[in-house]
Amino acid sequence: MEKKNIFYAQSGGVTAVINASACGLIETAKKNKHHFGKIYAGKDGILGALHENLIDLSKENLKSIRGLRYTPGGAFGSCRYKLKSLEDNKAEYQRLIEVFKAHNIGYFFYNGGNDSQDTAHKVSLISKEMDYPLTCIGIPKTIDNDLAFTDNCPGFGSVAKYVAVSIREAGMDVASMASSSTKVFILEVMGRHTGWIASAAGLASEYAGAPPHLILFPEIFFNEENFLVKVASCVKKYGYCTIVVSEGTKNKNGEFLSEAGLKDAFGHAQLGGVAPVIAQIIKTNLNLKYHWAVADYLQRSARHIASKVDVEQAYALGQAAIQFALKGKTGVMPTIIRTSNKPYRWKIGEAPLEKVANQEKHLPRKYITEDGFHITNACRNYLRPLITGEDYPPYKNGLPDYVKLKNKLVLKKLSKFNKTSSKENKTVTIVDS
Amino acid sequence: MEKKNIFYAQSGGVTAVINASACGLIETAKKNKHHFGKIYAGKDGILGALHENLIDLSKENLKSIRGLRYTPGGAFGSCRYKLKSLEDNKAEYQRLIEVFKAHNIGYFFYNGGNDSQDTAHKVSLISKEMDYPLTCIGIPKTIDNDLAFTDNCPGFGSVAKYVAVSIREAGMDVASMASSSTKVFILEVMGRHTGWIASAAGLASEYAGAPPHLILFPEIFFNEENFLVKVASCVKKYGYCTIVVSEGTKNKNGEFLSEAGLKDAFGHAQLGGVAPVIAQIIKTNLNLKYHWAVADYLQRSARHIASKVDVEQAYALGQAAIQFALKGKTGVMPTIIRTSNKPYRWKIGEAPLEKVANQEKHLPRKYITEDGFHITNACRNYLRPLITGEDYPPYKNGLPDYVKLKNKLVLKKLSKFNKTSSKENKTVTIVDS
Repeated sequence: MEKKNIFYAQSGGVTAVINASACGLIETAKKNKHHFGKIYAGKDGILGALHENLIDLSKENLKSIRGLRYTPGGAFGSCRYKLKSLEDNKAEYQRLIEVFKAHNIGYFFYNGGNDSQDTAHKVSLISKEMDYPLTCIGIPKTIDNDLAFTDNCPGFGSVAKYVAVSIREAGMDVASMASSSTKVFILEVMGRHTGWIASAAGLASEYAGAPPHLILFPEIFFNEENFLVKVASCVKKYGYCTIVVSEGTKNKNGEFLSEAGLKDAFGHAQLGGVAPVIAQIIKTNLNLKYHWAVADYLQRSARHIASKVDVEQAYALGQAAIQFALKGKTGVMPTIIRTSNKPYRWKIGEAPLEKVANQEKHLPRKYITEDGFHITNACRNYLRPLITGEDYPPYKNGLPDYVKLKNKLVLKKLSKFNKTSSKENKTVTIVDS
Repeated sequence: MEKKNIFYAQSGGVTAVINASACGLIETAKKNKHHFGKIYAGKDGILGALHENLIDLSKENLKSIRGLRYTPGGAFGSCRYKLKSLEDNKAEYQRLIEVFKAHNIGYFFYNGGNDSQDTAHKVSLISKEMDYPLTCIGIPKTIDNDLAFTDNCPGFGSVAKYVAVSIREAGMDVASMASSSTKVFILEVMGRHTGWIASAAGLASEYAGAPPHLILFPEIFFNEENFLVKVASCVKKYGYCTIVVSEGTKNKNGEFLSEAGLKDAFGHAQLGGVAPVIAQIIKTNLNLKYHWAVADYLQRSARHIASKVDVEQAYALGQAAIQFALKGKTGVMPTIIRTSNKPYRWKIGEAPLEKVANQEKHLPRKYITEDGFHITNACRNYLRPLITGEDYPPYKNGLPDYVKLKNKLVLKKLSKFNKTSSKENKTVTIVDS
């Protein structure tokens, strides 16, 4: 029987370790040459399949593939492109199968968050309908840690480590300056819908009075009055106050704080940035000298301070995807199961794509203190193992020596996907920021 | 002859390595017990001397002192407090001498930037006038790299490494997303008066098209039209554009861009943040999807990614300060002299405080490309050695295990410094942000 080829694609916002999953997948597939044919990656994610832009991984040397383990970003390009429902846009799904057929692809690995698992699930349905045998396996990835059926998501542990390290360091800076200068410092972190990332910053506070002093979660509506009382009492007690605010923090009307405040010179709402809004509230009401930072992409690309556990799990999940395929599984996603907390132990589990798709795992209320401004010990116990260990990349000229692949495309065999490509600019759905 | 005690104080904005200078100074002084008495540090910098808040370093164990080498922030507290001129406020200088006299202090080490070297110089003058023998030695420190008479300043190399690493990593993130999402990324970095920090980000661009694509310096007035042409052509050529902007970037009228744009709900100018201003200009004129980050204190406290050369030089300068004192020198500051560029070699030099004080070293025009949007090879050659090498702190529970000193104060011997303390709130001069 002719060996079938592999198609792997990255999807949605990239992370510090999504390439480690790619590395685990590619290296494991290469060890099983008897079973698999060529390995292709989608240029810019699933768009690469739609437009038949397939990267030929046989053109890359083994050292570069190895280097993916420590290289942030998405090595083949990712995309924010959500396929519509099967009913609304069956042509897109059919096109995917046509491209897979043209290139003898029998394995589809999709590395992404909720939407991507949903897509992988739908592709698996359409392949059955079109009677084209296709192994469809999802690989979890999201800094937001909001995928169901897995104890945690690769990408999250490294962001978690970054924000905890950053607020500890900046907190020490502010503590030194507070007697005559900055008294309040605000760090804005990602997490539009859930407070997992903001909660991780709380790990830096290992004794009473250690930064961060306050955390603002999307799960808790912002109460300005309570907040200002907390800030004032913190400054009185410790001489300064450090605050971590999630970009998704909302007011009592459910509006993002970041959209409720500042206007530009033309009266347009300023786009993005809840940290300056919080700073302005403190300035106006308490008149304290402040500084603020917005970590934005820095936090999710910070491979230089990645969590070792996160890197290992990302790699293992890529590896597991291939092992699942070898066992003939399809329509599943490998997951992380925590088998022990102290000492931390984990193993690979599996979840059916059908169930994973479009479910969000929120930060449980019991992980947030009763006053709504910090994390509980239950939260610490959950989070701590995920930021454990360092896994430094190699350096050259004082900078991380990340790899850059050749990304050679294979020759196209089909005509252009005109129908969709002409509509594409209109139909692209921006999933989130 | 009775041994004289040491007084050491940190001044101005702290850095990732100012404590490494403290470590070098304390460890070297302890090795010379035959010569020096006790070692005191000022609580919150020079304010500790004015208010007789002296930290007794004999209460700290050697392991904690050693740990200062890898601990960011200012371990004893710093301050933004500039003594007035001798004519305007002689009482303060006299008070300093009285406190030194009461605690048998014969050595004054002041670790800071331009203003601090000026203060150290003035203290040396007044000690002569008051006939109180005092060795006054400055130790350079500033992330801004703007001190004259030294090839570079400790603190700068680590910020430089942080911004170069960060824009490389975030740039890889944006490159992955650009086909269907974010096309422009803006990173705001410190440097109110000089573009040294912004220039360092340019080191990440090691080949044509590598981020950062554009740099905005305080030295070059912002020309919106030219800038937009550059951004548009960069997006056209590479698919995306990454920009590093110095907080001190000004428009053609010499106004800070950060103050020329956004207003809050009450019509007040928004305080701080040039990155969102640049983002808005791009949004309005080019309608490209953007993200922005403001690193703020994260960049100057990022000990986790400190430059090894920077740590070694910071330590060596603290050490040299003691060695100068042993040789009977006073009114001087140890400096870094670059003796070779390839391979990079350096040695300790010295400069008279009188000359160092209040001179700013600007980024030379020849370090900026002719179009004003990037750095030249001459600049790269100067900067590259300063970010070389990594010097990781120890970790515990996934976080850097930084030290926290006891900071026990010695018993006071004098009455309160009422005259100044009552006026203090009014006379405190905030040197910069």
